[in-house]
Amino acid sequence: MPDGPKHGPEPPRRRLPDDAGGLLAAARAGDRLALARLISRLERGGATAREVAAIAYRQGSEPPTVGITGAPGAGKSTLVSRLIGIIRNEVDALAVIAVDPTSPFSGGAILGDRVRMQDHALDQGVFIRSMATRGHLGGLALAVPEAARILAAAGMQRVLIETVGVGQVEVEVASATDTTVVVLTPGWGDAVQANKAGLLEIADVFVINKADRPGARQTRLDLEQMLDMSSAGSWRPPILETVATQDDGVAELWAAIKSHEESLAATGELERRRAERLDREFRRVLRAQVEAAVERVFELEQHAGLVSSVAAHETDPYDAADILIGEVGSAS
Amino acid sequence: MPDGPKHGPEPPRRRLPDDAGGLLAAARAGDRLALARLISRLERGGATAREVAAIAYRQGSEPPTVGITGAPGAGKSTLVSRLIGIIRNEVDALAVIAVDPTSPFSGGAILGDRVRMQDHALDQGVFIRSMATRGHLGGLALAVPEAARILAAAGMQRVLIETVGVGQVEVEVASATDTTVVVLTPGWGDAVQANKAGLLEIADVFVINKADRPGARQTRLDLEQMLDMSSAGSWRPPILETVATQDDGVAELWAAIKSHEESLAATGELERRRAERLDREFRRVLRAQVEAAVERVFELEQHAGLVSSVAAHETDPYDAADILIGEVGSAS
Repeated sequence: MPDGPKHGPEPPRRRLPDDAGGLLAAARAGDRLALARLISRLERGGATAREVAAIAYRQGSEPPTVGITGAPGAGKSTLVSRLIGIIRNEVDALAVIAVDPTSPFSGGAILGDRVRMQDHALDQGVFIRSMATRGHLGGLALAVPEAARILAAAGMQRVLIETVGVGQVEVEVASATDTTVVVLTPGWGDAVQANKAGLLEIADVFVINKADRPGARQTRLDLEQMLDMSSAGSWRPPILETVATQDDGVAELWAAIKSHEESLAATGELERRRAERLDREFRRVLRAQVEAAVERVFELEQHAGLVSSVAAHETDPYDAADILIGEVGSAS
Repeated sequence: MPDGPKHGPEPPRRRLPDDAGGLLAAARAGDRLALARLISRLERGGATAREVAAIAYRQGSEPPTVGITGAPGAGKSTLVSRLIGIIRNEVDALAVIAVDPTSPFSGGAILGDRVRMQDHALDQGVFIRSMATRGHLGGLALAVPEAARILAAAGMQRVLIETVGVGQVEVEVASATDTTVVVLTPGWGDAVQANKAGLLEIADVFVINKADRPGARQTRLDLEQMLDMSSAGSWRPPILETVATQDDGVAELWAAIKSHEESLAATGELERRRAERLDREFRRVLRAQVEAAVERVFELEQHAGLVSSVAAHETDPYDAADILIGEVGSAS
């Protein structure tokens, strides 16, 4: 529904275009409301999301992305806020996507984190947006890379993707980037927990934040040991130490991220990673589309008998599934 | 591969049949090795799992199941071990499935728990089996109800399903039973944690185990308060107190479980629950089969051009998916 003109104390607002192409043109001209609307459509899923995703996809190459993940309380948002300050010296426009899967286990910290990022609320060169799950599980794994493309198409030269925690979706989303930064805190066992959560495999750069606290040295030793044991590629993740609240070590972190990007480009690994990511994304889209088609088949009147035959234990679910899948192509 | 005959110090073993029907007949005649093999096949997934699942499904109605879940350390295994002792007075054969999702976050406690259950290792009327994830994520949600059906088809009059923790898969599996028991321990906040983990919604019976410790009264009050606030159905979950290590309150727990079952049967809720579960299971099977079909289509030689066109950003993944979907049905 297009916004109607508004009267009263607020200044009259320009009417936004309704189609994805028009919105993207407006976003590219600097209209943040248009950009926000495009991302909301991606988040919601469905046919309009598809239109937005397709238009961004056809814009061209993949945007440069940095993922930042780590357990809640590691100080990721403060770190990102500090990084923004440094990156803004180099680029005119950058965006942050804060990934908040709707989970009973997360929650509390989100509002505070978003507030902390408001340091940059008045900077027109910084666009911050949090994204929650859309309709189906795993929807964020589709919507976040699509949003990164829209942001790049709208002129954002850098896209940071920060997660709230280290749930499965968050790890997946944060690692589907060019460079993945894993944030730990000092203390016994934090490196071990990170390893268990699968963070060691995805890290390109480690950060020990709050490094002025006791235990930073031990965490570093634990990490070095784990890295020694893991299979050596051409890039060994460096371990940076930061105190984000005091802006300590953040410039060095940014330098480490850029040095990883240079290594990716020089070794051809960047191309390989992006191709692999697109392949995964394609499969994910295909699966989502097939599932939607199956739902349509499932609801067809003629299959009511099949469903009750399964319920009565006369047909087993596998045979019944075969019958339905056979009709997916023609129903889509 | 069929086992060959063995010579030497071990007694010669009967050769097991290789087909699901033969194995089930052997299991029904009391052959525990045949039963274990059937469950291993379900766990592994794939075509042989499907054969086993289908044969059990066609055997008839749903087996009576009790799920037991709660955070690690709540004493679930000891409680189950005590329950076994009581249930064995009423039935000739019962089975326990211990659900251990292969998760980086679980682990430690499993071996100890299994050892504790060995109280019943020599009882031929008790079959204990732990199940871990098979190939794909969520595989346990399919394999566990299939295993419960196999166990019932093999003559087990009762099937208990115990989880190691309260992860998403575990909660899903434990709640897909006729009666779900949620085990808590005394102490500030345990009821609140249970609520956050979604355990309040799935509980038919609450147990405060280790009830001789301080805080049992507070935990009960917290639970009562939460139950007061939640929507009232015809069954209000009772709150039992046990000290499993001393066998205190376990007979009362068993009585409460049976009383819930009677209520389910009397209100028609049993039928409704089982039908709902079968519907969910059918959709899950359907989704798994769809994924397999998608993978097959994706691997077809003729689609290499399409895949590289997506990689080059010439075709967007949604359009490409539409092209492939037409072939999913015929490739399955």
